[in-house]
Order: sequence, then C-alpha cells, then structure tokens
Amino acid sequence: MGSSPETEHPVKAFGYAARDSSGVLSPINFSRRETGDEDVRFKVLYCGVCHSDLHSIKNDWLNAKYPMIPGHEIVGVVTEVGSKVKKVKVGDKVGVGCLVGSCRSCDQCGADQEQYCSKNVMTYNSSIVITYGGYSDHMVCNEHFIISWPKDLPLDSGAPLLCAGITVYSPMRYYGLDKPGMHVGVVGLGGLGHVAVLFLKALGVKVTVISTNLKKKEEAMSKLGADSFLVSSDQPQMQAAVSTMDGIIDTVSADHPLIPLISLLKPNGKLVLVGAPTKPHELPAFPLLFGRKLVGGSLIGGMKETQEMIEFAAKHKITAAIELIPMDYINTAMERLQKSDVRYRFVIDIANSLKST
Amino acid sequence: MGSSPETEHPVKAFGYAARDSSGVLSPINFSRRETGDEDVRFKVLYCGVCHSDLHSIKNDWLNAKYPMIPGHEIVGVVTEVGSKVKKVKVGDKVGVGCLVGSCRSCDQCGADQEQYCSKNVMTYNSSIVITYGGYSDHMVCNEHFIISWPKDLPLDSGAPLLCAGITVYSPMRYYGLDKPGMHVGVVGLGGLGHVAVLFLKALGVKVTVISTNLKKKEEAMSKLGADSFLVSSDQPQMQAAVSTMDGIIDTVSADHPLIPLISLLKPNGKLVLVGAPTKPHELPAFPLLFGRKLVGGSLIGGMKETQEMIEFAAKHKITAAIELIPMDYINTAMERLQKSDVRYRFVIDIANSLKST
Repeated sequence: MGSSPETEHPVKAFGYAARDSSGVLSPINFSRRETGDEDVRFKVLYCGVCHSDLHSIKNDWLNAKYPMIPGHEIVGVVTEVGSKVKKVKVGDKVGVGCLVGSCRSCDQCGADQEQYCSKNVMTYNSSIVITYGGYSDHMVCNEHFIISWPKDLPLDSGAPLLCAGITVYSPMRYYGLDKPGMHVGVVGLGGLGHVAVLFLKALGVKVTVISTNLKKKEEAMSKLGADSFLVSSDQPQMQAAVSTMDGIIDTVSADHPLIPLISLLKPNGKLVLVGAPTKPHELPAFPLLFGRKLVGGSLIGGMKETQEMIEFAAKHKITAAIELIPMDYINTAMERLQKSDVRYRFVIDIANSLKST
Repeated sequence: MGSSPETEHPVKAFGYAARDSSGVLSPINFSRRETGDEDVRFKVLYCGVCHSDLHSIKNDWLNAKYPMIPGHEIVGVVTEVGSKVKKVKVGDKVGVGCLVGSCRSCDQCGADQEQYCSKNVMTYNSSIVITYGGYSDHMVCNEHFIISWPKDLPLDSGAPLLCAGITVYSPMRYYGLDKPGMHVGVVGLGGLGHVAVLFLKALGVKVTVISTNLKKKEEAMSKLGADSFLVSSDQPQMQAAVSTMDGIIDTVSADHPLIPLISLLKPNGKLVLVGAPTKPHELPAFPLLFGRKLVGGSLIGGMKETQEMIEFAAKHKITAAIELIPMDYINTAMERLQKSDVRYRFVIDIANSLKST
C-alpha cells in the first residue's frame, strides 16, 4: 500500500494525540492524505467526546496504536471535494462518525451494514490503515462515509448523535423496539442512555429509565421525558415491573447482572446490549426459554441508517445534552468522564479553540 | 375449585408413576375427570419418553409432585367427545403434547402462544391443577389442546414430534432460520437434535451438526442428511467454520461454552437455546456487539403452530428415529436415557403393553 492515499500524507494537519496508555492528550503536528477523486475534505467545527475515546487512549481494549488522535463524533464544513463527489459541495455542513472505510463488496456492505464488514476502517486507531480522528483541525474521507448535515440540526449538540445516537437508534429499528405504544427500558443514563430516551419518546414508545442512581430521576422524567424511573437496587420497585417491558436498551459498560433485567421483559422481550463490560455476563437459559426472550448486541450503524437517524433527529429536534469545552480542557474532561461527571456529553469546540503551535 | 372437572376425577385410569425422587416408575391406579362439554377423551396408543420426563421424575427442577405420571408426547384414538367438540370425533387419531390448558384470554393466548401464558397447564406435574401424563391408559383434555393427527403420519415414530419436534420447529420459524439456502448448526444429536436436522433439511436449509462425539458423524450425514459435521473439541475444524452460520439450534442441556458457538455465527446470526443447563452460561458482550448477534430461547410451541408442525412433518415424511419399548421396560429405558444410550427416542407401546393389575 506504499502509494495509496492512506499512506501518502502530504497535507499538514494539527490535532491532539495520546502518546501512551497514560491517555494524556497533547498537541501534535501530523499529516493527512490529499483529496482523492471520491474524497471530501472538511474543516472540523465540533467533535464529541465518546466514552470509547477514553477507553482507547488508555489502551483498555489492548489495541491502541500511538500516537492516537481520537474523536468519532465529528461535524464540520466542506473545504474541498474530489472530482467524482456527488453527495456534498464546498461549504456544506457534514458529519463523520465511527467509520471512514469498508470493503464495499461483502454481504454486509451490500446490505448497508458497513459496521459489520470485517474489513471496515475505524475513524481512528484503525487496525487496517493509519487513521486519525476528529480531535484535529480537518478530516478527509471517502464521500460514502460522509453524513450530509440537515440544515436545522445544531452542529455542536448534534455531533454526539454520530456515535451515541446511531448506537441506540440502530437497535431500536433492528430489534423492532420502535413501535408506538411499546414499553422499552433504558439502562444507564449517560451519553448513550439520554439520547436513547429521546429517540424512543419520538417514536411514541413508553420509556422507563433503569439506573443505580435515584438522583437522576428528576432529570430523566422532567427534562428528557421518560415515563418512569426504576432504581435497579430497589427490589420492590423492580419486582413490580416484572414482565412489563417489550425491550430494554442496555447502555452500561460496567459489570452488572442481566438476570434482573431479563425478568423485566414480557414474553418475546428483547434485551439489547450496546455497552460492553470487560467481564462476561452470567446468562441462565431458563428465563430465556420461558418467555422466548433474547439477549442481543448491536454496534453503531451503517451509513444509510446513520443518515436516516440524523434526519429523524432533525425532524424531531433531538440533540444531545452537551457541555461545550475548549480543546485544552480535554484532559480535565477525560478525568471527569472517568467519574461520570458530565451531563451528558462533552463536545469540543474545535474550530474556536484548537490553535496550531 | 372443589367442583371443577380438574378436581373431580370419577373415571378410573391406570398408568405408571414415580413416587419419589428415586424416579422409579411403578403401576398406579388413579382417576381422571369426566368428559366435559369441550373435552376429548382418548385411549393412549403410544407415548414418547422425553428427557424432561427423566428430569421431572428425579425432581431435578425441584418442582416435583408425587405421585407423578409423566409423558407429554402422547398419541391415541378418540373414545368420547363432549357435546361442544368440533375438532375431532370418536375414532379419530389425536395427539397431546406438553400443554393441556391455558387462560385463553391473555395476550399470549390471543397470539396463539399458549406456551408463554403464565397460567398454562402442563400435561403432567402442573403447578396449577393436578395433571397426569401419557404413561397411562387414557387421557382427557379440552379440545383446544388436541392435535388432529394426519392420516399418513405414523403414530409411534410421530409421537415424539409433539414435544421434541415442536421444540425445534418453533424457533426455526420464530427466529427466521427457515429460509432455503441458509446455513444452520444443530448442537447435540439426541432426541431434539436429530429431528431438528430433519426439519431444517425439509426447509431447504444447509445443516451442520456440532457434537462432542465423532461417532455420530456417519449417522448424522448418511441417515439424517446433515451436510456437514463439526466436532466441537476440534479447534482447527471449529476455526475453519467461524462466521459461516446464519443460526444455531442448541439442544444441549449439559453445561457447555457458548462462546465457540457464537463465533460460528455470521453477522446478524442467532444462537437459539432450547436446552437448559443448570449452571448459567458465560456470555461476553463483545462478540454480540461486533456482529449484532443474539442468544435467544424458545420453549415448545403454541397449539396452532404444533398443528402446523405436525402437518409439515406428515407432508415431508418426518418422524423421529425411535426404539419402541413395552411399558415395563421404562425403568431400564430411563437408565439408558441417562447415559444417552438411545438413538434417538424411546416410545412406549402403551396400548399393547400397559396392563392394569
């Protein structure tokens, strides 16, 4: 691949990188490829801070390549397009999420499920080619992986939808938890969980937030519009909710028991995991058999569905609740994120605060 | 319920019962209710010996009520019908599977999923009313739970379809593992697994049997028509089959790891458990997320689907491979079943061998 656009990087760029598993981010000069025929180059305006950025820079998943420039909730404005680009033009607002490439020829790519292509290219820390994410001044990628930004969707608070949003939206659609009148639980009220509530409510679904933290009740119900709130440690509350839910979106990445959640499901109920604890879950077979319940997973979404999600969000005025931060606040933000001290997503004001040295 | 038909048992009956958790079966005189308006009474001809009969008589599930007369794969000939019965007439061949009652008014009953009705009545050892199973001279139950037996389906080798058959057929339909050209794995080649292979082949599905026992390969492929065979302990074989299956029907009730099975699934693949080991499975989230895979359960089937299954079996000439035994062989049969020493189902020749004392 010596002469491929991915390895030729003649265009100067600037960003923030982690250099080792301390995860400390600091300024970096690097370079990106030239704009290929099918490429879109854009100036980064905002970039969300995903919890997986934190896992990645600290090498929690043992796959880190340093220097690592994180960021996969990226919104910007197009500055250059290749000769064959049709989707967008210079000046358009665009987004890039977790993917910047895939094989484009396998069954998964053919079914608009690039997220399950075995050769897909993650926006940063890719195992296939060198990629750098959105904590940087600009990006370039194939137009297939560019999201056209709806005119009426805010750029800053919309950015987190590119990962957090699609991560919860896709399983609602795939597992059929999107029917008006259904009752769906959302486990965990963080970056993913809070937008899950918003999408479900927009779909006409009754939503119960399930959390370890009673303090989140007021906000879940009055600000996000959840219909009810369960404290997972409150046995009588949990018992009263047994067999009441059509599905559950479980956003929690910390170790937690699935059995109480499975018991909340009606027959044919679906527990969908979008968070990945490091230890395996305990899964007894009996409660799955008696009720034909399932435990499934889901990972982000394909490009077509991500575009659909972002248009759905614009139509229903769904955005993330964010705390806008300057680039040089990022290490403090990561420390706070580690302690779940954010409601609910940090977004970096890249264009106004990332200054090349 | 002092005067209900379930507690008034004026009709003399005879069968074989376990008296305690030794599970030893011996002759018993008991009685059954009179034929109600919607009831069908039939002389039992054959009864399959399900592995759950063995679990039940030994109180493995800690819910045994003694004396227990097991048997829920029952085929017979109608001897009397109530005044409102429309489905069958005297002389018709009929079957009864795992259910003889349900509430008939809940969502599950309304959706023809009586197996998930929280008030359903199991054919024997019911927790709701006293019920006795098919190791007996005759049965009586509401016509809703009677299966009309197709003319061209053998009575003896067809009997096991009433539990083993529907247990594997229902999840093929519900989880969509029934499309011609799909590739589905069957884990375990016992009473359930061997009929799973037959149903899947009749549906036009490519079938791979996954077993711990290489000795079963010849029979799986030449007699049952499986397309391939994997020995689960053979790492290179298992590795070569990674990401090749659309689904897996896992019939094994012994403890076994799910992770190697999940890895056999393609993206969107479905691992369906119909066996219930006593210990919880270990389920890591990552392989579910990366591939949107699911682990689901399934329990027998509803009455409508059981009738559909039995007609499908008749049309495609699907029967269980059985060893026909006399009633007084049952304790030896149970010992052999415990050691998996049967290919693949014992069926008791009730009418010709159960003699009242």
